[in-house]
Amino acid sequence: MSPIPSSTRALPDPVAKKIQDDSERHLEELCAWLRIPSVSSSSAHVDDMLAAATWLESKLTNAGLQTKRIETNGFPMIYAETPAVDGAPVALVYGHYDVQPAEPLELWNSPAFEPTLRDGNVYARGATDDKGQVLTHIHAVCDWMQSGEPLPMQIKFLIEGEEEVGSANLEAYLPDARDLSCDVVVVSDSSQYAEGLPAMTCGLRGIATYEIKVTGPSHDLHSGSFGGAVANPAIALSQLLASMMDQSGRIQIKGFYDDVQPIPDAERAAWRQLPSDEPQMRAESGVEALHGESGFTTDERRWARPTFDVNGITSGHQGEGVKTIIPSWASAKFSFRLVPNQVPDAITQAVQEHIAALDLPGVQIELLPDHGASAMVTKSDSPYAIAASRAIESAFGVVPVPIREGGSIPILADFQRHLGCDVLLLGWGQNDDAMHSPNEKFSVADFHRGTLASAHLWAELAADS
Amino acid sequence: MSPIPSSTRALPDPVAKKIQDDSERHLEELCAWLRIPSVSSSSAHVDDMLAAATWLESKLTNAGLQTKRIETNGFPMIYAETPAVDGAPVALVYGHYDVQPAEPLELWNSPAFEPTLRDGNVYARGATDDKGQVLTHIHAVCDWMQSGEPLPMQIKFLIEGEEEVGSANLEAYLPDARDLSCDVVVVSDSSQYAEGLPAMTCGLRGIATYEIKVTGPSHDLHSGSFGGAVANPAIALSQLLASMMDQSGRIQIKGFYDDVQPIPDAERAAWRQLPSDEPQMRAESGVEALHGESGFTTDERRWARPTFDVNGITSGHQGEGVKTIIPSWASAKFSFRLVPNQVPDAITQAVQEHIAALDLPGVQIELLPDHGASAMVTKSDSPYAIAASRAIESAFGVVPVPIREGGSIPILADFQRHLGCDVLLLGWGQNDDAMHSPNEKFSVADFHRGTLASAHLWAELAADS
Repeated sequence: MSPIPSSTRALPDPVAKKIQDDSERHLEELCAWLRIPSVSSSSAHVDDMLAAATWLESKLTNAGLQTKRIETNGFPMIYAETPAVDGAPVALVYGHYDVQPAEPLELWNSPAFEPTLRDGNVYARGATDDKGQVLTHIHAVCDWMQSGEPLPMQIKFLIEGEEEVGSANLEAYLPDARDLSCDVVVVSDSSQYAEGLPAMTCGLRGIATYEIKVTGPSHDLHSGSFGGAVANPAIALSQLLASMMDQSGRIQIKGFYDDVQPIPDAERAAWRQLPSDEPQMRAESGVEALHGESGFTTDERRWARPTFDVNGITSGHQGEGVKTIIPSWASAKFSFRLVPNQVPDAITQAVQEHIAALDLPGVQIELLPDHGASAMVTKSDSPYAIAASRAIESAFGVVPVPIREGGSIPILADFQRHLGCDVLLLGWGQNDDAMHSPNEKFSVADFHRGTLASAHLWAELAADS
Repeated sequence: MSPIPSSTRALPDPVAKKIQDDSERHLEELCAWLRIPSVSSSSAHVDDMLAAATWLESKLTNAGLQTKRIETNGFPMIYAETPAVDGAPVALVYGHYDVQPAEPLELWNSPAFEPTLRDGNVYARGATDDKGQVLTHIHAVCDWMQSGEPLPMQIKFLIEGEEEVGSANLEAYLPDARDLSCDVVVVSDSSQYAEGLPAMTCGLRGIATYEIKVTGPSHDLHSGSFGGAVANPAIALSQLLASMMDQSGRIQIKGFYDDVQPIPDAERAAWRQLPSDEPQMRAESGVEALHGESGFTTDERRWARPTFDVNGITSGHQGEGVKTIIPSWASAKFSFRLVPNQVPDAITQAVQEHIAALDLPGVQIELLPDHGASAMVTKSDSPYAIAASRAIESAFGVVPVPIREGGSIPILADFQRHLGCDVLLLGWGQNDDAMHSPNEKFSVADFHRGTLASAHLWAELAADS
C-alpha cells in the first residue's frame, strides 16, 4: 500500500453551488426511481424493469448527454456520454438499475418500493444497491453540464439491468463494444469501511452460483408405507450439502483451494491496522458470535477467502402441522464466493466431481450452474486511485482507507480484460445498509457527499492527466 | 403363525340382501363425506372439520344408533353404539374423519375434494384414509340394523377427528372412558398385501415427529458482505440432518437402536413366503431402485425396522432466480418410524443429546417434538383373529395372509393398554392407494367387499363367543 497524497484541487464554484442548490431535487429524483420495482430475477417485473430503464434514459437525455438504449436479449442497457475533451482522460461510470427481490416483504418496516426517510436514511430496495450510488455520478455530471462550466473530461455511462442476475448480456456485449473505450471505469456499488471512514476498495470476490435438485419417488410417499424402503431426497440433499463444508468452515470439495493464493502481506498488514469492525458486524447481523474459517481474521475471511453458502432449500411439507411423507424431491440454491485466481468453470467441475463421488443411492441429482465470475483486484497506487482518494477526502473530509469487499460485481473483471482499463471502486454505502436484505437503506448525507465526491473526481482526474 | 381355519359361517339373508341392494347408496354417501375437506392440521379447515363430524353424527343417528358427540379441546369425536347383547362379545370400531392436507394440489388429476370415479376407483383425499374404510363398518352395521335382523353382538363406534395430527385428545380421553369397554377393537385404516390378496395386519410401527429450527443472523444477509464471517443456518441444518443417518440407511443417533428387538423368526419366515411386492413398490413409488438399511428385505425394512425421514425443509430464497443470501433461519420437519419396544420419549431424549453433542457453532437450535406413539403388535392366533380371517375369506374369496404395516395408528397402543382388549387391523385398501399423496384413491370393489366382510365379521365374532 502506497501512502495516499492528501492535497486536493478545488471544484469550480458554479459546479459546487449547483450541486449544493440541487440537493433536495437529487433526493426527490432518487425516490422516484426507487419507486419502480425493477427486480430483474422475477418475470412478474418485466414492465417495471423497462420503466426503470426509461426513467434513466430520460434523465440523461434531458441533461444534455448523448444517450442510447442498447437492446439485449434480456433487459436494455442505457449508455450516455458527455462531449469528448481532447487530451483529457475518459471515464466510464458503470452501474445497474435492477435490484434484488424484496422478499420477505413482512420484515420491511416500510414498504420496499415506497422510499421512506427515517433517521437520516432513505429506506427502499435499491437505495444503496445500486440506484442511490450510481445516481450520485449521474447528478454530479448532469449538474456540472448544467452549471455552465465545461466538463474537463469525457464521462461515459453504462447502466445495465442485469447485474443482480449475472450480467450475461453485458458480458456478451463487451468484447466488441468500441463505444465503451475509456481509461478508467468508475463503480459505486459498495460500502465505506465504517461510519465516517470512507474506503478505497481494492478488490472484490468472484462468485459461482448453482441450483441443485435431488429427485426420488415420482410423488410424495407415505413415510409409514415406504419409509425404510425408498431413499429420501431431503436426506440425500442434506448429506450432499453437508459434505461440501466441515464445521470449521473449510470447504471439502477436492481441488477447491488449488488455485487460491495467499493474501498479500502488505494488504494483510494494512487491514490489521483498521479499527475492528467485529462489534459492528455482530450488531448488523444480529449474531452473538461471528464464525468462520479458522486461521483468518473476520476481514480476511469475508474479503479474501473463498466461501460456501446455501442460499435456500425447498422440500416437502412446509406448511402448518405434520405431514409424514417422503418428499418426491428436494432442491437448494447455493453459491461460492471466489478469490483471485480461482476460475468459476473449474469450481463447477470440482462440484460435479464431488457430487459424482458421493454416489448417493436411490436418487437422481441435477446440478444447474447459474452464473460465475472471477474475483478482481485493482491497483491502489495508480494515478486514478490517487485522484479518487483526493476527491473522497475533499467531499468526506477524511482520507479513505484501503480495503476489499466480499461481494462480487461479476462484470468488472470483463471490463478490465476487454477495455484494458483500471477500475475504481468508490463505495458510498455503509456495511449496515442491508443490501439484499429487508430494510435496505442509504444515508442521505452519504448520497450528497457521494455526489460531491463524484464532481471532485472529474476535476482531479482531468488535472492529473 | 398358526394356520387359519377356512370354514365360514353364513350371513343372514336379509342382511346380505340389504347390503347388496344398498351398494349404490353406500358409494354416494362416501362421496358426500369426501366432499368435505376435513383437514385437521390446517386452521383454515375448522368449519369443514365440524361439518364432517356432523355428517357422521347424522348418519349414525338416522340409522338408529345411540350417538353422542364428545367435545374435546380440539375436534369432536363421534361415539355411537348398537344395543347390548347378553353373552355376546362387544366390538369397538375405531376410525377417523380427518384427512391429510391435499397439497400439492397441482399434482391431482381431479380435485382432491371432488370425488371422481375412474377405472373402478374413487379418487379423493380421504378415500382410503380413512373415510372410505371406516364407512364400510358403518354401512354394514346400519344396514344390519335396518334389515330387520337383530345384530348378534354389540358394536360401538369411536370416530375421531385428530388421527392425522396425533390423537392427543383421544389419548387424554381413553384412561377414563368406561363407555368404550369392549373385547376387541376393529380398525380398517390399512391395506391388503396386494391386489386380490387381503391380509391380516399383525403389527404397526410407532412414530415420533419433530420440527427443528436453526437460527443464525436476525435477518437474511448479503453472502458477499458476510459470507465466511457468519455461520449459515441452512448449512448447519444440513449438517444436523445428515448426521442423523448414514448413506447405508443406518441411523447414527447414539442409543437409537438400544430397545430394538430382532424380528421374530416365525414372522420373518412367513413374510418370505409372500409373493414379492418389490416390482409393485417400485411402480407405486416411481423409483428405479428401492433403497434401505442393508441386511433386511424390503418388507422387513418397512414393517419391522425403525426409520428416519425428513418430511420437509424450508430455508431462504425459494423463488425464481438467484438471491445470494445467508438465510436468517432454516427449518425442517422430520420423523422416525419406531418398532416394538422403542419408546418415543427416549427417542426424543436421544435426539436432543445428539444435537447437543454436535455443538454446531454460530447458530441457535430449537427442537420441537410434535407427537409420538409406540409401535404395536397383535396376536394372529386369537379367536378374534380367526373370526376375522373367516369373514375376510367370505367376502373376498381368499384366505388373508399375515403381514405388518409400516404406518402408525398412534392411538392403538393406548386402546390395548387402557381397554385391555385385542385389536384387529383389517385393511381394505391397496398399497398404491396414495394415502397422504396426490390422487389418493380407494377401489370401489374393495369398498363393497369391505362392507360385506364387516357384516360377516359380526356374525363370526358372535358365533365364536
